[in-house]
Amino acid sequence: MTPRKLILHPDRLFAPDERQRSVARGLYQKVQGLPIISPHGHTDAAWFSENTAFDNAADLLIKPDHYVFRLLYSQGIALEALGVPRADGAAVEQDGRKIWRLLANNYHLFRGTPSRLWLDTVFAQLFEFEHVLCAETADDYYDSINAALATDAFRPRALYERFNIELISTTESPLSDLAHHRAIADSNWQGRVISAYRPDPVIDPEFEGFVDAVRDFGELTLEDTSTFAGYLRAHRVRRAFFKSTGVTSTDHGHPTARTADLPAAEIEALYAAAISGTASPEQAELFRAHMLTEMAGMSIDDGLVMQLHPGSSRNHNASVFKQFGRDKGADIPLQTSYVEQLKPLLDKYGTHPDLTLILFTLDETAYSRELAPLAGHYPCLRLGPPWWFHDSPEGMRRFRQHVTESAGFYNTVGFNDDTRAFLSIPARHDVARRMDCNWLAELVCDHRLDIEEAEELAVELTYNLVKKAYKL
Amino acid sequence: MTPRKLILHPDRLFAPDERQRSVARGLYQKVQGLPIISPHGHTDAAWFSENTAFDNAADLLIKPDHYVFRLLYSQGIALEALGVPRADGAAVEQDGRKIWRLLANNYHLFRGTPSRLWLDTVFAQLFEFEHVLCAETADDYYDSINAALATDAFRPRALYERFNIELISTTESPLSDLAHHRAIADSNWQGRVISAYRPDPVIDPEFEGFVDAVRDFGELTLEDTSTFAGYLRAHRVRRAFFKSTGVTSTDHGHPTARTADLPAAEIEALYAAAISGTASPEQAELFRAHMLTEMAGMSIDDGLVMQLHPGSSRNHNASVFKQFGRDKGADIPLQTSYVEQLKPLLDKYGTHPDLTLILFTLDETAYSRELAPLAGHYPCLRLGPPWWFHDSPEGMRRFRQHVTESAGFYNTVGFNDDTRAFLSIPARHDVARRMDCNWLAELVCDHRLDIEEAEELAVELTYNLVKKAYKL
Amino acid sequence: MTPRKLILHPDRLFAPDERQRSVARGLYQKVQGLPIISPHGHTDAAWFSENTAFDNAADLLIKPDHYVFRLLYSQGIALEALGVPRADGAAVEQDGRKIWRLLANNYHLFRGTPSRLWLDTVFAQLFEFEHVLCAETADDYYDSINAALATDAFRPRALYERFNIELISTTESPLSDLAHHRAIADSNWQGRVISAYRPDPVIDPEFEGFVDAVRDFGELTLEDTSTFAGYLRAHRVRRAFFKSTGVTSTDHGHPTARTADLPAAEIEALYAAAISGTASPEQAELFRAHMLTEMAGMSIDDGLVMQLHPGSSRNHNASVFKQFGRDKGADIPLQTSYVEQLKPLLDKYGTHPDLTLILFTLDETAYSRELAPLAGHYPCLRLGPPWWFHDSPEGMRRFRQHVTESAGFYNTVGFNDDTRAFLSIPARHDVARRMDCNWLAELVCDHRLDIEEAEELAVELTYNLVKKAYKL
Repeated sequence: MTPRKLILHPDRLFAPDERQRSVARGLYQKVQGLPIISPHGHTDAAWFSENTAFDNAADLLIKPDHYVFRLLYSQGIALEALGVPRADGAAVEQDGRKIWRLLANNYHLFRGTPSRLWLDTVFAQLFEFEHVLCAETADDYYDSINAALATDAFRPRALYERFNIELISTTESPLSDLAHHRAIADSNWQGRVISAYRPDPVIDPEFEGFVDAVRDFGELTLEDTSTFAGYLRAHRVRRAFFKSTGVTSTDHGHPTARTADLPAAEIEALYAAAISGTASPEQAELFRAHMLTEMAGMSIDDGLVMQLHPGSSRNHNASVFKQFGRDKGADIPLQTSYVEQLKPLLDKYGTHPDLTLILFTLDETAYSRELAPLAGHYPCLRLGPPWWFHDSPEGMRRFRQHVTESAGFYNTVGFNDDTRAFLSIPARHDVARRMDCNWLAELVCDHRLDIEEAEELAVELTYNLVKKAYKL
Repeated sequence: MTPRKLILHPDRLFAPDERQRSVARGLYQKVQGLPIISPHGHTDAAWFSENTAFDNAADLLIKPDHYVFRLLYSQGIALEALGVPRADGAAVEQDGRKIWRLLANNYHLFRGTPSRLWLDTVFAQLFEFEHVLCAETADDYYDSINAALATDAFRPRALYERFNIELISTTESPLSDLAHHRAIADSNWQGRVISAYRPDPVIDPEFEGFVDAVRDFGELTLEDTSTFAGYLRAHRVRRAFFKSTGVTSTDHGHPTARTADLPAAEIEALYAAAISGTASPEQAELFRAHMLTEMAGMSIDDGLVMQLHPGSSRNHNASVFKQFGRDKGADIPLQTSYVEQLKPLLDKYGTHPDLTLILFTLDETAYSRELAPLAGHYPCLRLGPPWWFHDSPEGMRRFRQHVTESAGFYNTVGFNDDTRAFLSIPARHDVARRMDCNWLAELVCDHRLDIEEAEELAVELTYNLVKKAYKL
Repeated sequence: MTPRKLILHPDRLFAPDERQRSVARGLYQKVQGLPIISPHGHTDAAWFSENTAFDNAADLLIKPDHYVFRLLYSQGIALEALGVPRADGAAVEQDGRKIWRLLANNYHLFRGTPSRLWLDTVFAQLFEFEHVLCAETADDYYDSINAALATDAFRPRALYERFNIELISTTESPLSDLAHHRAIADSNWQGRVISAYRPDPVIDPEFEGFVDAVRDFGELTLEDTSTFAGYLRAHRVRRAFFKSTGVTSTDHGHPTARTADLPAAEIEALYAAAISGTASPEQAELFRAHMLTEMAGMSIDDGLVMQLHPGSSRNHNASVFKQFGRDKGADIPLQTSYVEQLKPLLDKYGTHPDLTLILFTLDETAYSRELAPLAGHYPCLRLGPPWWFHDSPEGMRRFRQHVTESAGFYNTVGFNDDTRAFLSIPARHDVARRMDCNWLAELVCDHRLDIEEAEELAVELTYNLVKKAYKL
């Protein structure tokens, strides 16, 4: 079988209707070339600090990408065969070429998924392949990608520049020394790589190693984290340190959006239970809830923008978690509610002019019912872009359809790629730009916006709103 | 900067596709000129009774419109600066022109929202502006609107006639004497302004002033509202009074759709707790739940159509509620379920041929899952149009997409504007007519309906179904 | 009034946009003629075994079709007038012609519903009517349909062949002797009619007659169903019997998706309560939950594919249930969650290569939030097609829009008609084929798929995936 041509159509993701398509195309031309701002993600600062070449195609594009290996796994392909490392160190496939062929032979499984869009864009734009990935082209892909990765043009800093990135943010634990970020800042290189303060390991009593982490937190900050007061001071110390390296945001990955504002005695008792490792699930939940409110208070003081990413049931597959550990494509969204859950925090800080709280969701039902009405009222609230499973054309379409009418455009904050798949970043931002332009084009075509407004909004959604919301 | 032209495109809200658009246009021509029936809303009967001129543009179009000031507030503009009166009487901006300029300078925030559609329609059709509202045109707008409002052509009765309104309904507490409604009926003016029986103040134990309201309710009706039996009689007395003025419906704004049918002893004990001001939240909820079933029973007796508007978390912003009071744009929808909640009422009265219960929701997930299947079975149930945050093009689109297949068209009841923004009423009905025609056009174009059916349905959805459902 | 022409447009259900429509048309031509595989439904094996002619139009098309009579009932037409038999044997309309005229006179109520699509297809394709059903054509329809039904060409086997059915599955209780299925298999006729093992009557303690059914279950299998161990053996015996007749699947219709894996003592105590008729609602729920996990274990052993259909509040209308019994169009969907509910089963068997569990839902909010992420990870999970109220054009559109990006196409299983309305089966499959082709055409037109892929997928969705998933 002759491999099919790999073609990135210039009008991809635009509506079939020619009237709308031509407007979308025109809007896209205004924003296609704008720099990428990536205010929330999971790339590794060491890449940019050390600037060493990436390994082979399988190590770079399959093993670390849970979007990719989860779908292969769902069709019966063992994680071991994909080279995903086991927690117990047991043998997994080491031959990158064999792993790559598994992807190639099963690439049809990705039809209709965003991974397919991202990968094809990487293959065509970055590696200049002219035929699609399939059994016949697998080896050529593998060899060509590996050869390219060995060249200087594919080192992290060169790619950062080629991708036209203006700034990229990673996320780190408060225990991180941010050595790579500081090294980058001190280097001659002009790229901007900042972190975000992600305190889950020292805020979530159910996080693996929480008790030890809080102890280390105290040692690192020279604060007495055996008391709640000392623990709060430790946060302030590390937030100040993060901020000193250019950080502008915090990030909170909680199971729910629950917040609380507890009396001193109650939170101190909860904290004592948490750091002794005896907190019940409900106590852990309540502790996290209270800490969101504390974080909001500190954000008002130090100006760091808060991000809340709630609603994932982590490590749902018990067997995979046991054998392979965290983040193996087995996190499943949960019903998430915001209205009553956020009220304690909002009652305390919701009208403070110095707070920005960016809300995300994996439960799309909250868009029109809760999130847009909340963000269309509270001055502190902004809506993050479609996230994770919803970082996709249909997910983006639903986001704009559901939130625009109650929250407008200006209570949204542009796009997050939220990824560790560095090569896919331009493709992901491109999907967002195309889908936003297509939505604006629809509003132009049915006369809800005029074209000048749409052109202005296209730039706002791509570039200005993210800079403003994240204080970049 | 030269202000952009303000153009209401004749094809606005119709699909970009020319095939669908031309069908939609044809359908719309059949219904565009039909009279407006507004069976549920919040205009003030005094306007039509006294027929005095409206005040200035800010007083008419900004201060009372929570759709408008909530979005401005969400972007950091103080309610005081918008002239929204404070509960404590503290000073707020008094200069209408300054307030108006705030709207003009921030009019871009409304891009993509229904408020923008409504306001632009008012500006273009009613006031005949030819350029969009912006900083440059703010003063001209303010002066021109104020000048127009001072003329006889802009008095309430003249506008009612110009808007081609056939009937408009307000909502009042059972304690209201409906003096203005009666005065209108007794006048020579031909407009029809009726009320709806909205008993929340004497049914909801959590309503501000409930205990006093129930006492007044007894005094007004000469019934002994210290007993539940007397309280029920008082409802019958006031329902009869309302009905005698032309009222055809009741309206119930509960936090949930919960209903109950309690034994006599239990409801009497709940009532005693309620009128002594000691009802717990759960008792209050159960009392409201039981009263919905009582109201259904009375509706069977007196023929008043019931409307249920559940699922709003009222006055969510504690600080705004404290400083400004109710209805300040801080009501947020809640998850709402109907299936188990409505069962007690439906078990008792659901198959009675004389009951009509019109259901509304702020939780769109209930459309296809609960509301359409319920309305597609129970003879007493009808579905109200998309409400509040969902009274919008996308909200209307989702409503038809989600309910039509299980409930058909004939279990829906046409459009409600549900507004106190009188000037926007034609614009709101026009959006509904356009979106319904566009939906029908889609069904014609993909051959689910033929054109004759669609033309008939367009008239049904605009005019006939509302008259039938509300018994007008 | 002259009746309107009845025309089945060859492009029905395809997008108005000509670009997308022409692609959809091309794809549809590839699958239009493929055989029908109906792996889950409720036809009666006796039809195909005995091959006797169907009765009149009212008996065949109205009385047994709850989609049809529920919508008529919702508009105030009594079930008695539609000939629906009463549980107490009280008189109902016996004149089929009168019943048929009720449908004809109210056929406008079905505008926009899938029943209208199915019926019109039956009328035009099978009975070759050239004018729509209405008051004027009612008698001609009634007489012509009855005349046709009396001919050999309309006997069940002839229709099976005319419909190009390759296989059809019914569902039966474990107590069934499958006599008709065995008679068909032993006959010279080439049609394949298999059953599915539907153990609800002996698994659900709240099913009418559960206690007796379990006793009969023991007698039938010669196992001691007074003990849980014997009860499990009885399941194995009947599953083996069903399998011996060609059955490849089981089906479970539970109120929720809850699963459990209880310790022996606990499940034995629950079982004792269940078979003594004393199980509380919570105990009944927990028993069902545990039994799903048992059924999964048995499926791994015997290879039967599991289907789970959760989330319907059965017999919601108390009055209709009392007067007419089960399945009278009064089943209403409930909010349904899967993530935590399925975890006990998935923890035990979720990674076993020999399990296939096909999940259905009546709660569309679960598509993108829970079901697609689950099916896009767990190797055992597949997603069933849109079901019941969502077996409709808009329901199918939403299904593909919401699940494709996280689950891909290959974790779905083609179409189920799930119907007892035998004549409508080709129409139902045709709707699914058209909607799938229209969705694929959209992906082709916005360049998410190329045309060769879409052609391959059209065949997969129509024919291959169902055979593979159901092991046919």
